[in-house]
Amino acid sequence: MTYTNNDLWKIRDTCTRFLHGHGYASPQNYFLEMAEYPLASQRPDQYGEGEHLQAFESEIAALLGHAKGLFFQSGTMAQLIAARIVTDQKQHQYIGYHPLCHLEIHEEKSYQHLHGLQSVLIGDKSRLITKQDLLDIKTLPAFVLLELPQREIGGQLPVWDELVWQVQFLQEKGVHVHLDGARLWECAPFYQKSYAEIASLFDSAYVSFYKGIGAIAGAALVGKEDFICQAKIWNRRHGGNLITAFPLYLAAKKNMEKRLHNFQAYYAKTQDIAEAVATIENIEIRPSIPQVNMFHVWIKADRKRLIENAVRIAQEKGIWGLAHVATTVDPAVQKLELYIGDGAMEIATSDIKDLLSQWISGSC
Amino acid sequence: MTYTNNDLWKIRDTCTRFLHGHGYASPQNYFLEMAEYPLASQRPDQYGEGEHLQAFESEIAALLGHAKGLFFQSGTMAQLIAARIVTDQKQHQYIGYHPLCHLEIHEEKSYQHLHGLQSVLIGDKSRLITKQDLLDIKTLPAFVLLELPQREIGGQLPVWDELVWQVQFLQEKGVHVHLDGARLWECAPFYQKSYAEIASLFDSAYVSFYKGIGAIAGAALVGKEDFICQAKIWNRRHGGNLITAFPLYLAAKKNMEKRLHNFQAYYAKTQDIAEAVATIENIEIRPSIPQVNMFHVWIKADRKRLIENAVRIAQEKGIWGLAHVATTVDPAVQKLELYIGDGAMEIATSDIKDLLSQWISGSC
Repeated sequence: MTYTNNDLWKIRDTCTRFLHGHGYASPQNYFLEMAEYPLASQRPDQYGEGEHLQAFESEIAALLGHAKGLFFQSGTMAQLIAARIVTDQKQHQYIGYHPLCHLEIHEEKSYQHLHGLQSVLIGDKSRLITKQDLLDIKTLPAFVLLELPQREIGGQLPVWDELVWQVQFLQEKGVHVHLDGARLWECAPFYQKSYAEIASLFDSAYVSFYKGIGAIAGAALVGKEDFICQAKIWNRRHGGNLITAFPLYLAAKKNMEKRLHNFQAYYAKTQDIAEAVATIENIEIRPSIPQVNMFHVWIKADRKRLIENAVRIAQEKGIWGLAHVATTVDPAVQKLELYIGDGAMEIATSDIKDLLSQWISGSC
Repeated sequence: MTYTNNDLWKIRDTCTRFLHGHGYASPQNYFLEMAEYPLASQRPDQYGEGEHLQAFESEIAALLGHAKGLFFQSGTMAQLIAARIVTDQKQHQYIGYHPLCHLEIHEEKSYQHLHGLQSVLIGDKSRLITKQDLLDIKTLPAFVLLELPQREIGGQLPVWDELVWQVQFLQEKGVHVHLDGARLWECAPFYQKSYAEIASLFDSAYVSFYKGIGAIAGAALVGKEDFICQAKIWNRRHGGNLITAFPLYLAAKKNMEKRLHNFQAYYAKTQDIAEAVATIENIEIRPSIPQVNMFHVWIKADRKRLIENAVRIAQEKGIWGLAHVATTVDPAVQKLELYIGDGAMEIATSDIKDLLSQWISGSC
């Protein structure tokens, strides 16, 4: 049987435990939770102007060690705008990043069609950017984006000294180095640094409020005062300056309060799960020791069979684990992206191990 | 005394009756109302994909007599994208509209900076576009936007036959004619036509869900199947394709159900108010007979004095009427944009007349 997304969601809705992220709450849950949030009784912003929104933006900027912050509807907007401001200023159309950067693979090449920019792909898509990759760059970009952690390769991170070297090497050449912090909150346990120490290495940074934080949607861009003032103008040009943004920024603030202190625990649980899952036959995990609370599970199995098993077991056990399953270059190997959040925290590691074994064997 | 927006909002928050729009609800009100909306317990969209969102998009398309619809975070995105698709297709960079079009005056010239387009301003900013204005166009644009009603001149509308002539004249020349329906819901009482009859004259149309409808934010673009498929790609490029859009589209759907049938009543109340207000000394209304549930009140008064009076009277009587007050070319004349919605429906017309008289005289 082949399942549509809608089929899968219907089965997911019948489950009670969720392997990925923070599980699935209905809009009603969100509305009820938000109604009780104290700031919900306060006046919201108008076109991005409002004391509580500005306080939140300042709070994020301070947390990341930057001068000023701006809330965005999406990271796509925030990062394209960052790239555009810098390239306009430097009158230079090249931007550089990892071959699996969000701008390259998930945004319909907006950087090119909407902003008239060209990309320089740095390094190889199967691994992190290295010193040598930077030394090998032929066309030096005006703007380089480094993603921490590199999501598409299982959430990998360079070691601290390597990161510092890379940022400084580029900055010394006059490059604006931007942090794609879509999952920055996940990096602190590995680096054992504050978010300010990590993000302030960079000239600007973007962070997200839904993925790890578990709000609805939304992002922030931080940087120098003048940079953010320009970003505000571009936000309006992108159509992102809505008459009010409260449904997103109030949820962002509330969920930052709820989850920002959880990442150490997610990280510890991730190590447990990785160790247990790695012992299953026909499974390999990448990276072999997860650096953040996510990793890839490479499963040697027929894709159709694996999904059928996973669906049947979900129906029997009520644990949902199917999300982000992709076939690798080897059609006999499937890749599952596993992101550990509130969902997995509520499932015993041994149950998670059993679940994945059963996906392969087909029997409970 | 000079008031900041924040000062004015603080005073507004102490009022109980509101002359403009639908009054002011807190985020908490919205969350509580939405929690009770039946669709809030259903699975939301993921990146714009979801049965309830698609049903809503189809409903809007059908209401407007078009083949397909797409929900947007903002009208800015929807209309820029419409212009871009058409100009790309026709390999032609000119777009035409009234000099006070939203694209020209409220979007930081995004059409130019983000989309590389040029504008052709049609007609004079103080009045509606005429037949002669169309005959006088020197550079024929690929895309012409007509706004119904023309907001910045007090919500004026061309008579039906004139509108039909203009649209057909342009279409016969191969121009894609787009409806800026930011306040389209407001037009039906004047034309005595269905929304489908009005909107299907055009090649594409945008409508808004907050202004008259009173939801949070959000818009829809409707048009041919292929046009909307392209719009979806551009929505992602603009950063408008969020992981979920439920806080906006559920509120849009709910408020469409709540208010779409109210516009005849708002229109009737508007006629009453206009007639009463027009008799006040030093006040002139424009247009002299409102064509929709909005109009401009031109008040011969010193701006500072007028605002001080309005604030003091708001504090005494609890009626808030200060919004969109602009100084005209004559510094002794102030222009108030009045939009009649649920707020004014709850205030006796005589009280509204008294309020505006007292703004001028300064005494209750």
